[in-house]
Amino acid sequence: MNKIKIGIIGYGNLGRGVELSVAQQPDMELVGIFTRRDPQTIEPQDPVVKVHQINEAQHFKDKIDVMILCGGSATDLPEQTPEFTQWFNTVDSFDNHAEIAQHLAKVNQVATNAEKVSVISTGWDPGLFSLNRVLFSSILSNPHFDTFWGKGVSQGHSDAIRRIEGVQDAKQYTIPVTSAIEHVRSGQSQPLTARQKHRRECYVVLKEGADEHLVREAIITMPNYFEPYETTVHFVTQRELDEKHSGLPHGGFVVASGQTGVDNQQVMEFKLDLDSNPEFTASVLTAYARAAYRLANEGQFGAKTVLDIPIALLSFASREELIQSLL
Amino acid sequence: MNKIKIGIIGYGNLGRGVELSVAQQPDMELVGIFTRRDPQTIEPQDPVVKVHQINEAQHFKDKIDVMILCGGSATDLPEQTPEFTQWFNTVDSFDNHAEIAQHLAKVNQVATNAEKVSVISTGWDPGLFSLNRVLFSSILSNPHFDTFWGKGVSQGHSDAIRRIEGVQDAKQYTIPVTSAIEHVRSGQSQPLTARQKHRRECYVVLKEGADEHLVREAIITMPNYFEPYETTVHFVTQRELDEKHSGLPHGGFVVASGQTGVDNQQVMEFKLDLDSNPEFTASVLTAYARAAYRLANEGQFGAKTVLDIPIALLSFASREELIQSLL
Repeated sequence: MNKIKIGIIGYGNLGRGVELSVAQQPDMELVGIFTRRDPQTIEPQDPVVKVHQINEAQHFKDKIDVMILCGGSATDLPEQTPEFTQWFNTVDSFDNHAEIAQHLAKVNQVATNAEKVSVISTGWDPGLFSLNRVLFSSILSNPHFDTFWGKGVSQGHSDAIRRIEGVQDAKQYTIPVTSAIEHVRSGQSQPLTARQKHRRECYVVLKEGADEHLVREAIITMPNYFEPYETTVHFVTQRELDEKHSGLPHGGFVVASGQTGVDNQQVMEFKLDLDSNPEFTASVLTAYARAAYRLANEGQFGAKTVLDIPIALLSFASREELIQSLL
Repeated sequence: MNKIKIGIIGYGNLGRGVELSVAQQPDMELVGIFTRRDPQTIEPQDPVVKVHQINEAQHFKDKIDVMILCGGSATDLPEQTPEFTQWFNTVDSFDNHAEIAQHLAKVNQVATNAEKVSVISTGWDPGLFSLNRVLFSSILSNPHFDTFWGKGVSQGHSDAIRRIEGVQDAKQYTIPVTSAIEHVRSGQSQPLTARQKHRRECYVVLKEGADEHLVREAIITMPNYFEPYETTVHFVTQRELDEKHSGLPHGGFVVASGQTGVDNQQVMEFKLDLDSNPEFTASVLTAYARAAYRLANEGQFGAKTVLDIPIALLSFASREELIQSLL
């Protein structure tokens, strides 16, 4: 069997997750990791894996089938996805909702010209949650939708706390409010406010001499990030933070309720409960890398989203096996 | 806009659900219902809808884009899907798991020759549950899977009770066992037995003079149907059965847990909670009828399953709208 040759651009939490996921796939092999840092300073989890300077990536254009892009959506992916799609089929997790259409158009032009496939905005939201939002809205007429996130670590909110004066370290959990979940699952259509849907729990390590009261006030009054939510602040030691809050769990669910017939209520839900957000996102990227490879082999070039790709293309198993065992 | 012209074959609970669902779609119109019964005896929910003898269906080959087949899997669909796919794009809900591959091959041959599209085995299981089983197994390596059904009415089990001597009427609910659900959601890999996963609750109306004790024994000892399960039998009046148990609720969920990285547990779940099983199944068939129409317009003829069809094709909304609003 010809294995699918994979490359990874960017080696943070997501890149490390992709390395682990590719190692689990019987039909894939990892050709190399490409980084902006000094390759000597990178230690892959599998010491056999080669690490290269990102500028050398294009010389691998005949040695890598799909390049999985593991950079951030703010500045990396808007540049990298169009750039690397000149030479490779690519997969990214671009998650800046407001700019997805523009990103798609730009990548599509490159992919079409270069006869490559690029699957953009994969992961779980956008990604699997989007897939389910479209599925639900196609089956239920005028459904009421809601998405809940958590319980999980929000990196952006954790960073925001760390920037406050007097804070040495911090971790923030986003937690869906139980009564809101019940409200939505029971098919209530009245929309919920941000405060009604989620609360925020913060674990904060103070710098020596910092004032608890001032730090707490700075957190709970922070506009957009914390002010609109019920926010609880716990002060802990660095040791406690490291021991109990070092993971990156996340999850959440999309739920939709709609009516069919005269007044029959139908509720659909898709839920994730993840010990490791980056490792799960990485597994989704890897599955869509397989689909990108297959679509490219079929000559279906261009930029795609999760909405455009048949589920059978994600699986290592053949269509016949899937129909036999899972349909 | 050219509306998609729909026909319905078979007018039981499922056919009635399809009639209601098609009426909710802005891009579809119902051309007619086709029945084996005397068309004069059929009363469509919308009195304007025309009812014809099933033998006349083929004369509508230029007037109907997609024929939605609403017969049963035991004897109707194995004959009807190949037959009507000679003249129409078709959608069915064939659910005899053991024979799906054979059904697919037979329908595929007809569809390919006739340049039609047939989407087989849609609905929710097989159907949306299958879609999620393949999705979960593509993302998690070697996941542990489970499917729970209920709380819901099982027509087959209700019928089995009705055939017992002394029984006038009956309704059977399949109910997932709470401890089993928790077992699976917590990622336990030990497989569960049938008895551990579901229990059965029966509401039974006795014929005059029938013996409660004998009927109860006949139910709980019935092989395959009830013997392997914890079964509760309630005797009620016909009036109580009609008032409290006339609906056809159902639902259930597919759950998978798997590990990524060293020992991070990831749990994925897809859940339905349905007031009306036939109306929901009908809504799924209608969405896949739209996909069948679009695939036929693209010339992608043959027999398809839910695994082969991009989700975007199910929605009335355009790809651009979906990407803008739901991705």
